[in-house]
Amino acid sequence: MEAFSDGVIAVAITLLVLDIKVPPQHAGESLLHQLLHDWPHYAAYVVSFMTIGIIWINHHAMIGRLARADHSILILNLLLLMSIVLLPFATELMAAYLQSPAGESLAAGLYSGAFLLMSVLFTVLNRHILLERAHMLRTELPLEERRRILSRAITGLAPYLIATILAVLSPYITLAICAAVAVFYALPVASGGNPAS
Amino acid sequence: MEAFSDGVIAVAITLLVLDIKVPPQHAGESLLHQLLHDWPHYAAYVVSFMTIGIIWINHHAMIGRLARADHSILILNLLLLMSIVLLPFATELMAAYLQSPAGESLAAGLYSGAFLLMSVLFTVLNRHILLERAHMLRTELPLEERRRILSRAITGLAPYLIATILAVLSPYITLAICAAVAVFYALPVASGGNPAS
Amino acid sequence: MEAFSDGVIAVAITLLVLDIKVPPQHAGESLLHQLLHDWPHYAAYVVSFMTIGIIWINHHAMIGRLARADHSILILNLLLLMSIVLLPFATELMAAYLQSPAGESLAAGLYSGAFLLMSVLFTVLNRHILLERAHMLRTELPLEERRRILSRAITGLAPYLIATILAVLSPYITLAICAAVAVFYALPVASGGNPAS
Amino acid sequence: MEAFSDGVIAVAITLLVLDIKVPPQHAGESLLHQLLHDWPHYAAYVVSFMTIGIIWINHHAMIGRLARADHSILILNLLLLMSIVLLPFATELMAAYLQSPAGESLAAGLYSGAFLLMSVLFTVLNRHILLERAHMLRTELPLEERRRILSRAITGLAPYLIATILAVLSPYITLAICAAVAVFYALPVASGGNPAS
Repeated sequence: MEAFSDGVIAVAITLLVLDIKVPPQHAGESLLHQLLHDWPHYAAYVVSFMTIGIIWINHHAMIGRLARADHSILILNLLLLMSIVLLPFATELMAAYLQSPAGESLAAGLYSGAFLLMSVLFTVLNRHILLERAHMLRTELPLEERRRILSRAITGLAPYLIATILAVLSPYITLAICAAVAVFYALPVASGGNPAS
Repeated sequence: MEAFSDGVIAVAITLLVLDIKVPPQHAGESLLHQLLHDWPHYAAYVVSFMTIGIIWINHHAMIGRLARADHSILILNLLLLMSIVLLPFATELMAAYLQSPAGESLAAGLYSGAFLLMSVLFTVLNRHILLERAHMLRTELPLEERRRILSRAITGLAPYLIATILAVLSPYITLAICAAVAVFYALPVASGGNPAS
Repeated sequence: MEAFSDGVIAVAITLLVLDIKVPPQHAGESLLHQLLHDWPHYAAYVVSFMTIGIIWINHHAMIGRLARADHSILILNLLLLMSIVLLPFATELMAAYLQSPAGESLAAGLYSGAFLLMSVLFTVLNRHILLERAHMLRTELPLEERRRILSRAITGLAPYLIATILAVLSPYITLAICAAVAVFYALPVASGGNPAS
Repeated sequence: MEAFSDGVIAVAITLLVLDIKVPPQHAGESLLHQLLHDWPHYAAYVVSFMTIGIIWINHHAMIGRLARADHSILILNLLLLMSIVLLPFATELMAAYLQSPAGESLAAGLYSGAFLLMSVLFTVLNRHILLERAHMLRTELPLEERRRILSRAITGLAPYLIATILAVLSPYITLAICAAVAVFYALPVASGGNPAS
């Protein structure tokens, strides 16, 4: 399961680059101007790349705790992967509409909403493993420790929920919150924590 | 063989996201309206993702039974992978034509037809392994058990055959049957069964 | 090296599906007619998929003989992968121009020329391993056996050379030869042989 | 970490082929003329493919020295992968603008600038591993040896820095330097050295 999940996440994170388009050559505008105008695509690329990367780190840790997997774990994992694979689309949507007069709030809401969906599915799978399939863990973990992991995971959902709601006010706030979450979990102090746990 | 097959299936399942296009910005329609209009793409994405995911689970189980592989197994496996890699195309075709005045039955028939082809090739490979190459299995399986696996596999072809035929009546019936198959095999009770076995 | 090569070949073989485009919906022609008109894309997909798949089988066997790899092997392997990754482009080029009034011979020649290049690079790497780096083989092979593998490999170049030359006469001959090579190596009798060995 | 990094680099190197487009058929120009006109795309493909390939060789060596990885290594590795995944975009940008009357210097500067960024991030991660996380190495290395690896790495940054600056004069100089770097590290004598070390 790990090799397949690694493969899917590796392809999804790499497909993000397809969202960054080479500016057309006959546009009458200088290349520099066009590249600067496309800044939302670079910003969204960085935020999404780091977020998917951190998800991979956490996914790796979650799956690494398992000695084996049953059908229910495989199916919940598929649902999680399905939400991760959507992220290149959500990223392009957000970047394309960030400076549009209409639709930018919806696009930003769907962007952080996609992160929220992924985080919820990650937490559901993590909860299923830690509480329902604890006998499949490689090493026995005390119930208290397992609950601690999960409550931290549920706390981690809050920023994406807030970012999705605040998209109504401004898509820039949404992007900023998503960026802040990625930076936070990349910091040394957050080692062990993660956007989806 | 397993690493290569995992890689191919992982890329194919991830390429499904390329079928979901960001709506053009200057279309005069609201983003929400355009996204809602594109619902066949999301439905087809979910159905195809879960189906390929379940195929991966079953492929993993089938290959995991083998201690080694010969040329005939490798070639039959390639034919199976060739049908799996076609699925992103079949998915986009079905989604694009689902609301078209013409061609929607053909597109839907090709969609479930692609699943049928994949299931037939899966069954052919499984039969070859279980009956012709039983001496290459990791653990000896009684003939009765091997026949049971195969007869369940052949039964599993029926829904896709029916879905392909009923595409003449309505592409929605076809999509619904394909979705139902994916849901059925994702359920805990179906553990061990699969759309291609 | 094996995991990386497997990954590159798995992605390249899967990208072949991007060459098969969903026909545009407002073309005034029936979907069936458009799909039938696109037959060169399906034919080229099948031929290229099987050829890359057989190359993978042979690459796997070639690398599997090695106990370790040095810089020269890694670089020659990169050159081989570079030629394999070109195949989705060569495939689309051939399919797109197969029914064009002009350019179809050049496109077909480049198609089999890409297979020829790949086969030559495969043979160069195989020769380097078997003759210059024989001390890195997992199991010692008698010189006679190593020469036999190589002479079979060199013989395998002939069909692609002929297919490339005959592209001047007709692109269909070229495609037919490439297809015949793939079928030949897929047959049980060819087990152990391969289009690039 | 190695399997995931291998996967990302394998996908990124394969996506380079998407930069090579099949010429449109109704262009009034012969296919040969159009293909020759697209030479910057082939040149950029070869240079980028070999450079990413050599980076993979070096990445493999760097990660192979580690017995385990902590959060800081994983995050620095993600940043490095993020710069590698940008290369298909930078490659297409450079190729598309190489013969454009305007923007060609900026595009070439961004191309070698992307290689420079990747090399800097590689060196930062290598330095972090060799100096700050030396206790995580599989085999203890004398400080002198570790410093030697790093100083060679820092020297390796110079060509890309020069290529980026000289883009102001001519994009062809930039491409030539990048090509020369790839050729240099592919030569047997450079075994052990690399564009990013």
